[in-house]
Amino acid sequence: MQRLSKIRLHPSLCPPTQSILKVQHFSIFCLMGFFDLLQLTGVTVGEVKAVADMHQRKAEMSRHSDAFIALPGGYGTLEELLEVITWAQLGIHDKPVGLLNVDGYYNSLLSFIDKAVEEGFISPNARQIILSAPTAKELVEKLEEYVPCHERVASKLSWETEHLGYSQKFDISR
Amino acid sequence: MQRLSKIRLHPSLCPPTQSILKVQHFSIFCLMGFFDLLQLTGVTVGEVKAVADMHQRKAEMSRHSDAFIALPGGYGTLEELLEVITWAQLGIHDKPVGLLNVDGYYNSLLSFIDKAVEEGFISPNARQIILSAPTAKELVEKLEEYVPCHERVASKLSWETEHLGYSQKFDISR
Repeated sequence: MQRLSKIRLHPSLCPPTQSILKVQHFSIFCLMGFFDLLQLTGVTVGEVKAVADMHQRKAEMSRHSDAFIALPGGYGTLEELLEVITWAQLGIHDKPVGLLNVDGYYNSLLSFIDKAVEEGFISPNARQIILSAPTAKELVEKLEEYVPCHERVASKLSWETEHLGYSQKFDISR
Repeated sequence: MQRLSKIRLHPSLCPPTQSILKVQHFSIFCLMGFFDLLQLTGVTVGEVKAVADMHQRKAEMSRHSDAFIALPGGYGTLEELLEVITWAQLGIHDKPVGLLNVDGYYNSLLSFIDKAVEEGFISPNARQIILSAPTAKELVEKLEEYVPCHERVASKLSWETEHLGYSQKFDISR
């Protein structure tokens, strides 16, 4: 794995991203080949690692992170968010997961999660995995205060992420 | 991989599950070791494969399926749902994805998806990937009529699910 030099915040990054990055000193950005994007200028905030694929990217970010934060995003953001929440629910990690709920962007998603608790598909304890706040400062405060209180199903001691990987090649296309 | 005998619908399965299974003849159930659950009685609906881990389970189900249907569920259901939607968005498969929206269970989630389209995080074409209906019959009709119209980013011809897998062991726990 190639480790690249320090990267810096680009002034064109959206304000919520800038805020999150300024509050905490994030150390790792894992990118798959898009090195043109690294022509960044501004404040130094972290390092960049080159990774081979999406799952290696997720594993590297998971391994090096202290917390997971989802800024407003689409399917990909939601998929990664749900993956780390599911891992937390299973007890694979104890790291907090936060939604930066800018202008109430995630309100409907949080309503859905509450509906799932009401209907018995998510336990009240597992609901506590997701933190949210409208500003970066408030969110990071919540992340720092987070105490895991969910049920532990999988032992993190025995966990190896090869369990998350495919052992063979499969063709899933039609 | 071990292939087990035909399984049959248990009368205690919730009515939506029974409906979905009766409308279409599903052929594969992938289970990780929980073979006690296979003491089922009723109508024969498919076969069972034993798999080693969650990702092999997903890959097997993806490979053998004609469509993906999410019944009401929690974090795990949502995570798997978002994964197949993301794969569809990337053009990895052309298979339809449906929500069985029993009693409006998924309404808030659908509102969130619409909000993401409105805010530009999901394209209107990618929004079309998700089908939903309140009954199994209506949902299966929509799945059958589905025509993919989203952008193709990844080539399904070149796709191998090893790209989804980890190539090394990682410890992601704290």
